[in-house]
Amino acid sequence: MDSNRILKIGLFGFGCVGQGLYDILERETQLPFQIEKICVKDPTKVRPLSPEYFTYDAEEVLQDDRLDLLVEAISDAQEAYQIVTAALRKGKRVVTANKKLVAFHLPELLALQQEFGGVLLYEAAVAGGIPIIRAVEEYFANEPLVRVHGILNGSSNYILSQIFQQQKPYHEALKEAQDKGFAELDPWLDVAGADSRHKLCILTAHAFGRTLAPEEVAFFGIDFLGQRDLDFAKHNNSSIKLIASVHVTPEGELVPLVLPSLVKATDDLNVVEQEFNGVVVQGAYSGPQLFKGRGAGGHPTGAAVLSDVISISKDYQYGYRKLNQTLRIPALALDHTLEVYLRTSDPALFDTLELEHQQIIECAPDAEAVVGTVTLGNLVQHQDKIREAGAFILALSSDFTKTKVQKQEKAEAVLS
Amino acid sequence: MDSNRILKIGLFGFGCVGQGLYDILERETQLPFQIEKICVKDPTKVRPLSPEYFTYDAEEVLQDDRLDLLVEAISDAQEAYQIVTAALRKGKRVVTANKKLVAFHLPELLALQQEFGGVLLYEAAVAGGIPIIRAVEEYFANEPLVRVHGILNGSSNYILSQIFQQQKPYHEALKEAQDKGFAELDPWLDVAGADSRHKLCILTAHAFGRTLAPEEVAFFGIDFLGQRDLDFAKHNNSSIKLIASVHVTPEGELVPLVLPSLVKATDDLNVVEQEFNGVVVQGAYSGPQLFKGRGAGGHPTGAAVLSDVISISKDYQYGYRKLNQTLRIPALALDHTLEVYLRTSDPALFDTLELEHQQIIECAPDAEAVVGTVTLGNLVQHQDKIREAGAFILALSSDFTKTKVQKQEKAEAVLS
Repeated sequence: MDSNRILKIGLFGFGCVGQGLYDILERETQLPFQIEKICVKDPTKVRPLSPEYFTYDAEEVLQDDRLDLLVEAISDAQEAYQIVTAALRKGKRVVTANKKLVAFHLPELLALQQEFGGVLLYEAAVAGGIPIIRAVEEYFANEPLVRVHGILNGSSNYILSQIFQQQKPYHEALKEAQDKGFAELDPWLDVAGADSRHKLCILTAHAFGRTLAPEEVAFFGIDFLGQRDLDFAKHNNSSIKLIASVHVTPEGELVPLVLPSLVKATDDLNVVEQEFNGVVVQGAYSGPQLFKGRGAGGHPTGAAVLSDVISISKDYQYGYRKLNQTLRIPALALDHTLEVYLRTSDPALFDTLELEHQQIIECAPDAEAVVGTVTLGNLVQHQDKIREAGAFILALSSDFTKTKVQKQEKAEAVLS
Repeated sequence: MDSNRILKIGLFGFGCVGQGLYDILERETQLPFQIEKICVKDPTKVRPLSPEYFTYDAEEVLQDDRLDLLVEAISDAQEAYQIVTAALRKGKRVVTANKKLVAFHLPELLALQQEFGGVLLYEAAVAGGIPIIRAVEEYFANEPLVRVHGILNGSSNYILSQIFQQQKPYHEALKEAQDKGFAELDPWLDVAGADSRHKLCILTAHAFGRTLAPEEVAFFGIDFLGQRDLDFAKHNNSSIKLIASVHVTPEGELVPLVLPSLVKATDDLNVVEQEFNGVVVQGAYSGPQLFKGRGAGGHPTGAAVLSDVISISKDYQYGYRKLNQTLRIPALALDHTLEVYLRTSDPALFDTLELEHQQIIECAPDAEAVVGTVTLGNLVQHQDKIREAGAFILALSSDFTKTKVQKQEKAEAVLS
């Protein structure tokens, strides 16, 4: 693009992210960008800007050829899908922060860019202000990766920090996260692990060259976390973090999973507290690298969107090198086993999941908890049942690559 | 470059980094690179490769027009300077891992690239395998940065970890760092803070748009760390880390400094242990971001060199946006004050440094220690005197941006 003139941005949505971007551009007057038009939904809402900025008709922005690029920052993934695909069909340059949109439609979004010559960037969709897609895309593009795992949801991490550091009850902590603006409109996305799953799908495409359908990924959250589970974590000198992880097995298969996990004080992710996000990229040669930063909030997310805006104006686009270079799309390692703690009031679940090496943990009479090993395949297949039963499931170690049951660890894991 | 053929690399040096690169290229056979010729110094040394790879004449490699790019991985900065400048004069593409070379000659290296059309990349020169230059160059190029600070020397950090975690004596820990290959050929560079200073100069150019002459930066190390200082740290519930830091003051001036510092358990850098490096980039909008990874070793550093090799083959070059966009080169804030602990057997030093708000700490009879405030200017001006006196100086807080003396902290800082 011509860099000697002010580039005009069409913005969809004026919530936390949209306002964050607007605010940064207002302050950084040397940046050659100007928000020209903002498409919002609710005409009755009072807004901090003059009305001529706003329109309620997406077509008005999509059709406006004076606009150099579009930024999509609305929370509804279905509406975002309509807008982004329509824009890509016109060959536009689009920046989005919508992880659900990208996770569910990446193959189509790639095909549309190819067919119509548009470009889509979405750094803000994963881990807020942390440049993790860019790092994996550019810096680790040619190094085989062993594992990418992290804390990808600021809201649930904030809740867990409040529970473990401040001894606050779950619902009070959730309310706080919502009041502070860390939570999604639908908090279930945060606390049940679905939002983390979306982000994990995106990371997997860039890091391991496979576009996962979200349905392929088992996800579990902290929404059923109870006192019994907190006691178990404390007994094991651990806290609990909601970890999204994908690693490649020695056979070249992938293990993608979102699962609460016991986390020791020595764990890299243990330092990721409050609304922060953290990602560990483990390269075959460079070793584990931790990226930690703000995963939510208007300014951090707005800064990530701005970084994409600048890159897209300089003709940058993702290379998807792992996706394009991968000769054989890696399969999922459905027989990979993990050691988990499972508490449920429906003991039939233990058999459904084919838990092996079971050890019963003394428990409240209305519920039962065991530790045992379970395969990834069974977690994927029966994840809805686990959720419906209101069961709480927890990895005994944040190292999901471990497959062997360590006798000593098992002994420790059992409450006496 | 033509990406359909194998690109030929001329390599200078076959130590830790050179062998790391060679090893990775041997294993990753899909990568279109081949080391064609290796220039080494010592003809008598037994090497793990067939002799026809090697030459002892740098000119032979520099003159060889079949080579697509050059990698400089020798430890002597003066020889590296001769090789890299000669190569840039021929308009070659060069990757270097030599931080001292880049720190001392960046303006000249930039001018040579401009004049002769060559390219120089040096990601491996700062923080080993962590893509920190790339992140600052690309991702934070347009966001004003507030501070960049970190642990940039793996050898001294390894030593400090051994001292604080394992209660090992300093010289035993230093020997171990050397045996493990983390240390520079001249360990003074590591432990006295000079190596960290070189890296800080490079980061400052990319992050704040000023090329610093290393002489402008005060640096202090851990080479005079004594039991008395360890006791002081423990009394303050802190460990000691060697921190390289540059921040911008509210007046827009820079404070670059390498200084051991008390580090609390809650500090972002407290989790950077052993030979790991860690860098915190604090953006005006994105907030603090921690990057932690291996700062030393053949494979991590080799992976960083490889990432540059691939980028340079795809015509990437640093944009130096902050350097080029900065209208007014920021001055150094020589009147910025820091609160320090200083132990020396030469009490005249307290007056030389014009230490203010002095509080004497009860001490061994042959030495005296105080806490007080000192200006950056006095640290720069008198740094040689402090080193010559064998004094140990320590920041009381890892937040070098603080200027006000906090009464309560001072009280805590004084041993009773």
